Amino acid sequence: MSSYWGKNFKLTVFGESHSRGIGGVIDDLPAGIPVDMEGIERMLARRATGMSAITTARKEPDKPEILSGVFNGRTTGTPLAFVIYNSDRHSADYSNLAENARPGHADYSGFVRYGGFNDYRGGGHFSGRLTAPLVFAGGLATGFLESRGIYCAAHIKSITDIEDEGPDIESLTYEQAKAVKDKPFPTFSDERGKLMYDRALEAKNSLDSVGGVIECSIAGLPAGLGDPIFGAFESRLAELLFAVPAVKGVEFGAGFGITEMTGSAANDEFYMDGGRVRTKTNNNGGINGGITNGMPVVFRAAVKPTPSVSRPQSTVNFKTGTDTGLVIKGRHDACIVPRAVPVIESCAALCAMDFLLGGKKIND
Amino acid sequence: MSSYWGKNFKLTVFGESHSRGIGGVIDDLPAGIPVDMEGIERMLARRATGMSAITTARKEPDKPEILSGVFNGRTTGTPLAFVIYNSDRHSADYSNLAENARPGHADYSGFVRYGGFNDYRGGGHFSGRLTAPLVFAGGLATGFLESRGIYCAAHIKSITDIEDEGPDIESLTYEQAKAVKDKPFPTFSDERGKLMYDRALEAKNSLDSVGGVIECSIAGLPAGLGDPIFGAFESRLAELLFAVPAVKGVEFGAGFGITEMTGSAANDEFYMDGGRVRTKTNNNGGINGGITNGMPVVFRAAVKPTPSVSRPQSTVNFKTGTDTGLVIKGRHDACIVPRAVPVIESCAALCAMDFLLGGKKIND
Amino acid sequence: MSSYWGKNFKLTVFGESHSRGIGGVIDDLPAGIPVDMEGIERMLARRATGMSAITTARKEPDKPEILSGVFNGRTTGTPLAFVIYNSDRHSADYSNLAENARPGHADYSGFVRYGGFNDYRGGGHFSGRLTAPLVFAGGLATGFLESRGIYCAAHIKSITDIEDEGPDIESLTYEQAKAVKDKPFPTFSDERGKLMYDRALEAKNSLDSVGGVIECSIAGLPAGLGDPIFGAFESRLAELLFAVPAVKGVEFGAGFGITEMTGSAANDEFYMDGGRVRTKTNNNGGINGGITNGMPVVFRAAVKPTPSVSRPQSTVNFKTGTDTGLVIKGRHDACIVPRAVPVIESCAALCAMDFLLGGKKIND
Amino acid sequence: MSSYWGKNFKLTVFGESHSRGIGGVIDDLPAGIPVDMEGIERMLARRATGMSAITTARKEPDKPEILSGVFNGRTTGTPLAFVIYNSDRHSADYSNLAENARPGHADYSGFVRYGGFNDYRGGGHFSGRLTAPLVFAGGLATGFLESRGIYCAAHIKSITDIEDEGPDIESLTYEQAKAVKDKPFPTFSDERGKLMYDRALEAKNSLDSVGGVIECSIAGLPAGLGDPIFGAFESRLAELLFAVPAVKGVEFGAGFGITEMTGSAANDEFYMDGGRVRTKTNNNGGINGGITNGMPVVFRAAVKPTPSVSRPQSTVNFKTGTDTGLVIKGRHDACIVPRAVPVIESCAALCAMDFLLGGKKIND
Repeated sequence: MSSYWGKNFKLTVFGESHSRGIGGVIDDLPAGIPVDMEGIERMLARRATGMSAITTARKEPDKPEILSGVFNGRTTGTPLAFVIYNSDRHSADYSNLAENARPGHADYSGFVRYGGFNDYRGGGHFSGRLTAPLVFAGGLATGFLESRGIYCAAHIKSITDIEDEGPDIESLTYEQAKAVKDKPFPTFSDERGKLMYDRALEAKNSLDSVGGVIECSIAGLPAGLGDPIFGAFESRLAELLFAVPAVKGVEFGAGFGITEMTGSAANDEFYMDGGRVRTKTNNNGGINGGITNGMPVVFRAAVKPTPSVSRPQSTVNFKTGTDTGLVIKGRHDACIVPRAVPVIESCAALCAMDFLLGGKKIND
Repeated sequence: MSSYWGKNFKLTVFGESHSRGIGGVIDDLPAGIPVDMEGIERMLARRATGMSAITTARKEPDKPEILSGVFNGRTTGTPLAFVIYNSDRHSADYSNLAENARPGHADYSGFVRYGGFNDYRGGGHFSGRLTAPLVFAGGLATGFLESRGIYCAAHIKSITDIEDEGPDIESLTYEQAKAVKDKPFPTFSDERGKLMYDRALEAKNSLDSVGGVIECSIAGLPAGLGDPIFGAFESRLAELLFAVPAVKGVEFGAGFGITEMTGSAANDEFYMDGGRVRTKTNNNGGINGGITNGMPVVFRAAVKPTPSVSRPQSTVNFKTGTDTGLVIKGRHDACIVPRAVPVIESCAALCAMDFLLGGKKIND
Repeated sequence: MSSYWGKNFKLTVFGESHSRGIGGVIDDLPAGIPVDMEGIERMLARRATGMSAITTARKEPDKPEILSGVFNGRTTGTPLAFVIYNSDRHSADYSNLAENARPGHADYSGFVRYGGFNDYRGGGHFSGRLTAPLVFAGGLATGFLESRGIYCAAHIKSITDIEDEGPDIESLTYEQAKAVKDKPFPTFSDERGKLMYDRALEAKNSLDSVGGVIECSIAGLPAGLGDPIFGAFESRLAELLFAVPAVKGVEFGAGFGITEMTGSAANDEFYMDGGRVRTKTNNNGGINGGITNGMPVVFRAAVKPTPSVSRPQSTVNFKTGTDTGLVIKGRHDACIVPRAVPVIESCAALCAMDFLLGGKKIND
Repeated sequence: MSSYWGKNFKLTVFGESHSRGIGGVIDDLPAGIPVDMEGIERMLARRATGMSAITTARKEPDKPEILSGVFNGRTTGTPLAFVIYNSDRHSADYSNLAENARPGHADYSGFVRYGGFNDYRGGGHFSGRLTAPLVFAGGLATGFLESRGIYCAAHIKSITDIEDEGPDIESLTYEQAKAVKDKPFPTFSDERGKLMYDRALEAKNSLDSVGGVIECSIAGLPAGLGDPIFGAFESRLAELLFAVPAVKGVEFGAGFGITEMTGSAANDEFYMDGGRVRTKTNNNGGINGGITNGMPVVFRAAVKPTPSVSRPQSTVNFKTGTDTGLVIKGRHDACIVPRAVPVIESCAALCAMDFLLGGKKIND
């Protein structure tokens, strides 16, 4: 399938930026899972916009409505469908996208893929807005995980070449992780965050944009999650992460850096710690052979600078097949990274919950 | 599913290092596709071992046998099953893997995942040997693609901090790409390749190992391949790449480096080139919004140093829950990267063929 | 997956009788398919209720709203989501279903399956109302098929032991098939239809209900549709048909009757008819080896009498585990068969479109 | 997918009648399930041939070889691949099938489906021989179920119009069910079995064939198995049953007969029986709303007379598009029904195991 992910937590996402609504269906959930709408809405609010000078001024309330699958505050076990209606639709802004390709956007590739039948308004199905259903699902998963002592800790690792400073992400307690989430600019170091923010503002003022790296740790996962070969934990999570618009790289543990280490340095030696198996280092990011080993799952995602920049750009009119120029008007983010943090967390939570729902596949 | 990948080129992989055989089933292939067994075996030979001082001495012929689905040299349209029998089985070498976890390997995580019922001999289902079925499938896909003017060009981008030098990978012609494939150490620069090889040999002599980065370009792909959201070209390819043991990072186009660029620099501006839409740069790696834009799809995979090093390591006995030490004996690779090149190419070919088989999904 | 069907026409259905709404998502449709909302609504109206003395008085407008995936009257190629809001909700009627099992209904089996968390109001996800999303999808498929000269002809074959009379269903022209669909009681013979109707009315008056058999032919299908083994045309269609509440039997061609024939009589001999391959008889219902042979696909579905009868019945309280009695109040159908006709047609249309979208899987 | 079935017990089947072998891969099985090869081979022997005057003289040992996924007599949790080599291949017999369609067979429909690339020898992938992998899987499932007190009881319900006599199939104990399985002609009544056998022999002598109905009960199933809508127990089982060549009808409980009953008669009233919920009748075949209710699941499958009859038949040459005649030579069954009994049982066992492996989907 295409707009579908999951083996146990089965999520379909639908919608276009300017259709009646966006949303999703979650199929095959166990019955009886509490659905904390407040928690979900808090997570959606972190993804939403309008709070800062460097993000767009579009103000959608992103208020989800449950259509089915929840009864008395818990999942029924039958499909959970939800919708977020699109209320703030300025179709007029986007009419030229039907033929002039914004560089870095899917206008041209989408035109070819869909033979020109796609809804191009506001990017249509390619809009970053489609991450809202992902965050709805991620919010549901977050509640499920936290009730089991599993939580995601994420922060902005870097904006351009400015790096965050602070504690090792693996050592973050639940309270510390929560505290980072509450920041409008989620970095460990407020000072570094300020530098990053200023860099983004500077980009905005020069009609440009910046990107960055988001780092995330899933703490509290048991060992033994993951399936063989194509069902590796890394495979399933990377599949989700690359579904997020703007993500161009994903790495686990030491990631690309591990290629500069020797095997004896890269190997994470095991030791017993109060009856639990642990590793001294975590260069493998909590995963061996595609299966969790009980250490935190640590990964990073590279988020490219927002392609919607206000500078004049040269491009083509793909209907006429001629070179042309283009200036993108309207609202857009100079730096999408802060808003992407809850999206990346959602991917982590979905993947973790999916494997947990798979249960113990051992005969007894 | 777990040991399964694909929407149109549907591949199931089976086998353990010391079971009767390893192999796969490819389901739902169109009927009438030529099956070039010689080409497939050539590709398998590139993955096989015993040719060099830095790779293991295990000499499996890796001769595949077709069980079904091929008739008169072409696919029948019904499932194509193949097997590679395991002839060189030294079970005695591996008996201690049942309880002592080799660092960086899946012995412990696999033990937990499978409740101790997994076949631990030689790494079992986690063995790098399981990439052979992937390469069989990749070889089949390569023939299919090349008959349509699509080809994969891959090389070793780096071993530790030694980088290859040479032409831009996107500009490689089919003949140049072929020439690199024929090298036992596939780098553009033979001089750089020699430095890398020496580094690996040095690691071997100090009972250690090294890793590296493989870079690959898929040339000749049409625009319009990819599905929305979770079906992004990057998602589908990353899912495959992370299924390859030892891969810890995947990036497309400028990858992690794109986060240090401004949007106006990162954006790939479109222009008309003799009637075709092209981009001036390729920081997005030939993919916009998860869909190919007609430029080469460029990506890199980080391959960690082989965890099988001969130095003494500390670890745990996971059956008794006690700390212990371990020295890995027997044959293993000091540098798996050259053998991984055809595996990475196979992932690229499988993904490209999968999307091509999906066909034009436009109503007419 | 569970609430999901299709390989090419991928349909997820959601909703409960008394949730906010019911609906579905159709994924991976080709872009550019015309969406004839009037045709879809006409088909939904045939399934809807309130028109006759023998069906329930519940009057839902069943007006679907498109949430996404349609632009300028055609599919965009991205997920098509639709919802039918539940406006007529009398929750009070159903409160006792939470513990007293209506015989022939899913109250008890659903309670066990979902651990008591299911939405029991009005049957919840088990409600016959959930066939409306199926008919929406069937209506869309019907438009697609008819534009290609493929159409479904269905009629009520029998109610209890009263059989319809009339032309061979395979010989029905498109106009004749349309004419039958327009009847509130879709039989070939109006006289026989009247007898059936009276039988149903009689059952209603004695606080009882009746069932029947629906026969359907898919005319105009090309040869060559169907996949091997588990992908047989019969398998895929039967899977759909048995998803319709109340269907307890499915047969193709001569069906169960074929077991009383000899092989030489049952075999459908081939002959050339003006350049086309045809068979003299159609005991195999247009399918050989799971693949269409170009003759009409003919099948029948057995629809049990509505289990909601007004007579006192004995049953159990499954929460207390005690025997008890029960009288079902409220509105219900004495004979669901006429309303089931468009549902069965929808199954046929979905299956046919699914295989057609699969396209020619032959290499060229 | 096509040659694939299952949500939890995931089975892929491969092979052609005259390819190197036939077999399958079972993916995602829990680790640690005992694999009783003797039991599996006994079940395969019941499907095999050569034992009687009315079945074909082809003598394949049908000896399966495990390629992977079994270690120390138990499943490893990684894919279980098995193969049955084709040893008895008389390709010469089948050469004319490449262009002359045997009535009732898939020669023509398969030719169109696969563009003439299919392996036509011996029916290729359409051969009844492909039920052997199904029976292998069914044998594995049978062992799993019987260790949990669940068993399948099947018998030949009828051959042409001759019906079996004996106990209600739902009341059969495990020992009684076993005793029927041991019969070469599995009927309750030996006398009726003799009549059926004679009828088949008579058909054979007149160069013809006969079919029949197989009835099966799955005893010991817990309530609560089945998924909503498309995942109904009936849907999943019917999908399997119609994958068996020659099955043209499937019905549950009272089946088509239920359409002649009133609702009050058809409804199965619940009562408490020593703390367990039971129903007084079982017209719904142990399933309400697609979900088991704890009563035996009872179903029947209509098996058409073998289409391979020795009488001259008229047909077409589908390559030249001309009318022609045909006499089928070689070995074939005058009555496939006894050999189909373990195949139908296997479908039942696979479906039951698949749902059981799904586990309790209730949050706790």
